[in-house]
Amino acid sequence: MAGNTIGKALQLTTFGESHGPALGGILDGFPAGIELDLEAVQKELDRRRPGQSQLTTPRKESDRIEILSGIFEGRSTGTPIAFLFRNEDKKSQDYEHLRDVFRPSHADFTYSAKYGHRDHRGGGRSSARETVCRVAAGAIARQLLKNVRIEAWVHQVGSHRVPFSVEEVNPTGIEENELRWPDPGSLSSAIELIERLRDEGDTIGGVIACRITGVPAGWGEPVFDKLHSDLASAMMSINAAKGFDIGGGFDRLELPGSIQNDAFEEGGGTRTNFSGGIQGGISNGQPIYFRVAFKPIATIKKEQDTIRATGEPTILEAKGRHDPTVLPRAVPIVEAMAALVLADHYLRQKTNMP
Amino acid sequence: MAGNTIGKALQLTTFGESHGPALGGILDGFPAGIELDLEAVQKELDRRRPGQSQLTTPRKESDRIEILSGIFEGRSTGTPIAFLFRNEDKKSQDYEHLRDVFRPSHADFTYSAKYGHRDHRGGGRSSARETVCRVAAGAIARQLLKNVRIEAWVHQVGSHRVPFSVEEVNPTGIEENELRWPDPGSLSSAIELIERLRDEGDTIGGVIACRITGVPAGWGEPVFDKLHSDLASAMMSINAAKGFDIGGGFDRLELPGSIQNDAFEEGGGTRTNFSGGIQGGISNGQPIYFRVAFKPIATIKKEQDTIRATGEPTILEAKGRHDPTVLPRAVPIVEAMAALVLADHYLRQKTNMP
Amino acid sequence: MAGNTIGKALQLTTFGESHGPALGGILDGFPAGIELDLEAVQKELDRRRPGQSQLTTPRKESDRIEILSGIFEGRSTGTPIAFLFRNEDKKSQDYEHLRDVFRPSHADFTYSAKYGHRDHRGGGRSSARETVCRVAAGAIARQLLKNVRIEAWVHQVGSHRVPFSVEEVNPTGIEENELRWPDPGSLSSAIELIERLRDEGDTIGGVIACRITGVPAGWGEPVFDKLHSDLASAMMSINAAKGFDIGGGFDRLELPGSIQNDAFEEGGGTRTNFSGGIQGGISNGQPIYFRVAFKPIATIKKEQDTIRATGEPTILEAKGRHDPTVLPRAVPIVEAMAALVLADHYLRQKTNMP
Amino acid sequence: MAGNTIGKALQLTTFGESHGPALGGILDGFPAGIELDLEAVQKELDRRRPGQSQLTTPRKESDRIEILSGIFEGRSTGTPIAFLFRNEDKKSQDYEHLRDVFRPSHADFTYSAKYGHRDHRGGGRSSARETVCRVAAGAIARQLLKNVRIEAWVHQVGSHRVPFSVEEVNPTGIEENELRWPDPGSLSSAIELIERLRDEGDTIGGVIACRITGVPAGWGEPVFDKLHSDLASAMMSINAAKGFDIGGGFDRLELPGSIQNDAFEEGGGTRTNFSGGIQGGISNGQPIYFRVAFKPIATIKKEQDTIRATGEPTILEAKGRHDPTVLPRAVPIVEAMAALVLADHYLRQKTNMP
Repeated sequence: MAGNTIGKALQLTTFGESHGPALGGILDGFPAGIELDLEAVQKELDRRRPGQSQLTTPRKESDRIEILSGIFEGRSTGTPIAFLFRNEDKKSQDYEHLRDVFRPSHADFTYSAKYGHRDHRGGGRSSARETVCRVAAGAIARQLLKNVRIEAWVHQVGSHRVPFSVEEVNPTGIEENELRWPDPGSLSSAIELIERLRDEGDTIGGVIACRITGVPAGWGEPVFDKLHSDLASAMMSINAAKGFDIGGGFDRLELPGSIQNDAFEEGGGTRTNFSGGIQGGISNGQPIYFRVAFKPIATIKKEQDTIRATGEPTILEAKGRHDPTVLPRAVPIVEAMAALVLADHYLRQKTNMP
Repeated sequence: MAGNTIGKALQLTTFGESHGPALGGILDGFPAGIELDLEAVQKELDRRRPGQSQLTTPRKESDRIEILSGIFEGRSTGTPIAFLFRNEDKKSQDYEHLRDVFRPSHADFTYSAKYGHRDHRGGGRSSARETVCRVAAGAIARQLLKNVRIEAWVHQVGSHRVPFSVEEVNPTGIEENELRWPDPGSLSSAIELIERLRDEGDTIGGVIACRITGVPAGWGEPVFDKLHSDLASAMMSINAAKGFDIGGGFDRLELPGSIQNDAFEEGGGTRTNFSGGIQGGISNGQPIYFRVAFKPIATIKKEQDTIRATGEPTILEAKGRHDPTVLPRAVPIVEAMAALVLADHYLRQKTNMP
Repeated sequence: MAGNTIGKALQLTTFGESHGPALGGILDGFPAGIELDLEAVQKELDRRRPGQSQLTTPRKESDRIEILSGIFEGRSTGTPIAFLFRNEDKKSQDYEHLRDVFRPSHADFTYSAKYGHRDHRGGGRSSARETVCRVAAGAIARQLLKNVRIEAWVHQVGSHRVPFSVEEVNPTGIEENELRWPDPGSLSSAIELIERLRDEGDTIGGVIACRITGVPAGWGEPVFDKLHSDLASAMMSINAAKGFDIGGGFDRLELPGSIQNDAFEEGGGTRTNFSGGIQGGISNGQPIYFRVAFKPIATIKKEQDTIRATGEPTILEAKGRHDPTVLPRAVPIVEAMAALVLADHYLRQKTNMP
Repeated sequence: MAGNTIGKALQLTTFGESHGPALGGILDGFPAGIELDLEAVQKELDRRRPGQSQLTTPRKESDRIEILSGIFEGRSTGTPIAFLFRNEDKKSQDYEHLRDVFRPSHADFTYSAKYGHRDHRGGGRSSARETVCRVAAGAIARQLLKNVRIEAWVHQVGSHRVPFSVEEVNPTGIEENELRWPDPGSLSSAIELIERLRDEGDTIGGVIACRITGVPAGWGEPVFDKLHSDLASAMMSINAAKGFDIGGGFDRLELPGSIQNDAFEEGGGTRTNFSGGIQGGISNGQPIYFRVAFKPIATIKKEQDTIRATGEPTILEAKGRHDPTVLPRAVPIVEAMAALVLADHYLRQKTNMP
C-alpha cells in the first residue's frame, strides 16, 4: 500500500531508485505567493552531497535539482512543486554480483521478502541516495518558516560525545569542519576515530542533535499527530536511523519529577527545558531539541558471511566506495525532515481557529 | 486540523476528556468474520487500570468497556467497531483551583496556547486517562495477529536497569510482580527506588522495552511508513514518552559496522539482531525489539513555582492522588500501540501482491 | 480497509448499525472557541426524523443526540466532538425472516459478498438510520460557516418537476409543507403522486436541489479535491443517491459554449451562472447550486422474487413500515453533507496563504 | 492544503502546468511483480492526444511518456512508479494578452482568487493538458485488473443522444469513428452538430457513458468510500465535468420501486440492473454503468465580455486553436479515472479478510 508520502497539509511524495533514470518528488500544499530562493535549496543539496571531504565517499552524484512545476516567475503558485534529479554516475554493471546476494544489514533481504521482485542496483529504492529528495523538499519547506531556525550537528561518534549537553551546544561554527562537530576541543579525537575505522574498512554510527528556535507555542496536533510523534516518525524514516529522543529523553532518566518539571516563569517561559520544547505534543515556545541515533553504515570493506536469494551461504566480498560514517551528511537530512514536519504543523495550526 | 486518527488500513480514532461524559474510539478497517474475545480486551484494560498496587494511584476509573457496533453474534462484521468508557469518578470541583493555573510540565499551558479555550479538569484531553482507548483498540487489533506475540516490560527505573540487554530478557513472569519487571534479582531495588520517591512526594521515569515475535518478513512500507517509523510515532504519542529506539539504538553506538551488521545464516535468519528485526523499514522475520523512554509523571506532591493564565507567578500546591511512576501501567499501553501498528501493516502488506 | 471517514482538515468518522446498541460519530478538527447551539443541532435531527407526516414512516427513532466530548462550558475545545444515538425501538425479532434472504436492491447481498458475516437486522450498517450521524455532524459543521446559507428542497418527484429551473427557486417556505417543495402551485400533484404510490405499496424517487450562498471565491483544492468532486462524493455516499450534477449539469447540454460561458461583470460577478458557482474546482463567489437524484426506496409492500443466501429462489413477502419516498427526509441530509464539505474546505483554504 | 492525490491503497499524485517544464505523476502502492505493457500505456495516451481528427485541436502535444522509477526489467517493483511528460510546444508569448484577463468559465478568476499568484499561460494547472497524467496512470492501473473490462463512449452531444439506453449499447466499434460514438445510424448527425458549432467558432458539451464488466461482488467501502462515491469524485475532477449518475440516475426517475428494484435470480444475478452494478456502495457483480456530463469547452472563437484582474471590463478576443467538443478525447480519460478507482478498491478489498 502507498507509503511514500509524508505530511498532511503539506505533503511530500517521493520516488526513485538509486540506479534508475531519476529520483524526485512532489511537494503539495505549499502556499502560494512565496518567493523561493532556489540557490538556498542547492546549497542544502551540496551539504548532503558525497565527496565533500575525506570523511565522505568520493562517489559523484548528480545533485543538480530541476524544478518542474509550481513556481512561476520566482514565486510559488500553490500548485504542486515537483522536482527531479537525474541519475548520471550509474555503473549498474558494478552491481551485477549483488543481483542474487543479500548484503548484511542492508534492505536487500527485506525488499526481496516484501516485493518478490526488486531493483538490486545500489540498493534501489532503499539507497541513501533517496534522501536527496528529502533535502530538496526540506529546503523549500524551510522557506515557509521565516522565523524558525533549525540547526543540527554531530553530537556523538561511536561513544565519543561532545562534552556538553545538547542544550548547551552552540552550533554556529559547524560548517567550518568536515564533521559538522560543534566543539573544537573534542573534534580531532572524533575525526581520528572515524579515520581509524575507515582505514580498517569499517564504519561507525553516532548521534545527531538538533535545536530549533522560533517555533511559537501551539504547533502539534494531539493525540496521534503530536509534534514529537511526527518528528520521531520523520527522523526514523531516514536511512540508518535507529533512535529518537526529545528533551530529557533516554539521557536524564535518573532525575525525578521535582527536577525535570519545567517551572514556569512570569510571562510563560520556563526555567529549565527538560521537555525539549514540546509538552502534551504541542510546542511551548521554548527551543525544541532532539537527538537521532544512527547505526554504522552497513557497507564495509571487509568480507562478510551472507546468503544468496536461494538461501545458500556465500561470502560477500568487500567492494565499492563508501562513507565511513553517515553522520556529517545526515546533518542536512535531519534538518530537512524537521523543516517538513514543522511546515506541515505551521499550516495545520492555521485551521484550529475559526 | 484533525489529528486523532492513527493507522491507514486499520484506523483508530479516539475522543474524550478526563472529566467529560465519556471517552471512546472507533476502530475502522478491522476485517470481518473474526471471533472476538471481549474478556481478553477487558483483561488488558485491567492491566492498565489505576489502583492495582502500591505503585499506582488508588484513584478508581470506570474501565468497563461498552462495545457499540461492529460485532454481531460474537464476530466482527467489517464495519467500524466503536467502544465507550463512561467517566464516573468525576470530582470536577477538585480541579477548580487549576482553572487558571498552568501545572509545570503538563499540557495546560500548551493546550491553552493552541486552542484558547480548554477543559482544565484533570488535564482534559491531555490526561493519561485517554490511553484507556488505546488499550481497548490494541487488544482488539491483537486478535488479528494470531501468530504474533507482543511482550513489554519495565526495563529501567531512573538509572536502575535490568542487568541484561533487552534481547536477553525473558519477560514471561512479569505479571507476577507489581512493577512488571523481568528480573527477580534486581526487582527489590527498583521498587525501593520508586517507593522512596513516592514517600518524598516525587516521581521517576524509566524505560519500557518490548519484544515482538512471530512477525514474518515483509511488513512495513518504505520510505515514509517504515515499520519502525510508525512504531516510533505510535510510541511517542503515548503520554510522557520522550524517546524511542530499536535494535542497537542509542545503546550500541560504540560498535562498528563490522560487528553490528547482522550476518545472514542459511535460510534467511541472522546470527545477531542489532537491527532489532527491521531492515530498510521492513520486518526481516527476526524478533522485533525496541525501547521507549518515559519521563517522570509531572504531578508531584511538592509545591512548585508556576504562573496563572494571566502570566503572573503563583505557587502550585501539592494535591491529588497520583502514581509515583507511569511505568507498570504503561506496559500494556506500549503493547497496545504496537498491536495497532502491526495489525495495520499486516493488512497493508496484503495489497502489495496482485 | 477503513472507509468511514470523510473530510481532511475536518474529519467525520461514523459508526453504528440500525439495530445495534448505538450509532454515533467523531467530528475531529473542529476549531476551538466556537459557541455551539445544540438546539440547532437537535432541530436538524428533527427535520430528518421519521414520523413527521403522512409521507414518512410512523416508525419511531431515538434521535436524541448525546454529546460525549469536545465541548466545554458551551464552546468547542478543538478536541474531537463525539456524539451518540442510542437505538431504542429495536424489534430485532421482526428481522429474523431476513437473516438468510437478500432483499432486492438493498445492500444485503453486497454486504454478504463483501464481508461474509453481517448484521442482517434492519439493514445493519447499510440502513438509512446511519444518516442520523451525518445530520448531527453537519449541523455542528454549519456553525463554523457563519455567512454561508445552505438550502435544499425537493425539486422533482418521479418525473414531476418544480416548474422553474433550480436557480429560479426561492426555497424560503419549504418547511411549511410536508414534502419540502418550494412551489405551492405544483405541490398537490407532487403529494398526490406519492400518496398514490404509497397506497399501492410502492415507492418513488426524485431529485433534491440545493443552493448555497455566501461562499467566497477560493474554496476547493484542485486537481482531485475540487469542491464539486468532494460535494459529489459526499452526496453520492447518501443512501439511495444515484446522481449528482452542478450548474448546467445534465440539464443544459443543448446550449453551446457561447451561451453557457458565464461572462464576467465589473467587479468579478458573472452575468449568468451555468457554472453553478464553481469553476476549475474552486468557488467563484456566485451561488453554488447542485442536484442529487435519489432512487425509490427499495422496501415496498409487494411480494418480490429474490434468493436466499444459499442462492435458491424464494419470495420476499411485504412487511414492515416504510416511507413511500426518501425525498423530504433527505433534504436535511443533503444540507448536512454540504455543510461538512464546505466547512472542510473553509479550513483547508486557510493553509493556502503563508 | 494538498489536494493533488487520489486513492488510498493505490495513490496517484500529479503535478504540472500547461506551459511549465513538464507534467507528471507518481503512482504509489502499485503491487510488485506485474509485467507492464508500456505500449498499451502509450496507446491510451494516443487516444487522448490532440490532433487526432477534425473534431479535435490540431495543437501538438508531447505525449511521449517517460517512466522514471518503479519498473525494473519490465516488471513493477512495488515502489512508486513516476512518469513525466515534457512540454515542448510551448508558445508562452501567445498567452501574454491573458496575463491580467479572466477568460469566462475558465479557472483564471478562481485560481487568482484562491492563490493570488498564478501561471496564466494556457490555463496553467487548470489546463486540460493535466489529464495526460490521469490517462498514463489509469493505463497502468488497468493492468492490475486482469478480468475487468472498462469501455466508455460518447453517448450524447448537445441534446442529440444515442437512441439506446446506456445498458443496451455495444461499444465495440467506437474506435473506428472519430467521435467514439457507438451507433452508426445516428453518428453523422452527431458529427454534423459538432462541425456546425465548430464552424461558428462555438463549442458543445454532452455525455460520456461507461460500462465496466468483470468486477466481482464486494468492491467498495461504505459508508463514505462507497464505490460510486469514489467514481463520482474521480469523474467530477475531470476538467469540464458537471454531472455524474449511475444506473437509473437522473434518467429513470419516473419508475417506481416495484420496477426499479433488481430482482435476484438463482445464483446471485439480477433480472434487471437499475442499480448500475453497485448496491449499498459495493459492487454486486453485475455490469457497472454510469454517465458523466461535460459542459462545452469554454474557449470559443467569439468575442466575449469579461474583466481584467483589476475588475474593469474588457473584451476577450477570439484566438487560439481549440476543440469544438471535449467529448471524444474525454473517453479515454473517463476510462482512466475508472481504472484508478477500481484498482484502488480491488486492493482495498484484500484487507477486509483476515
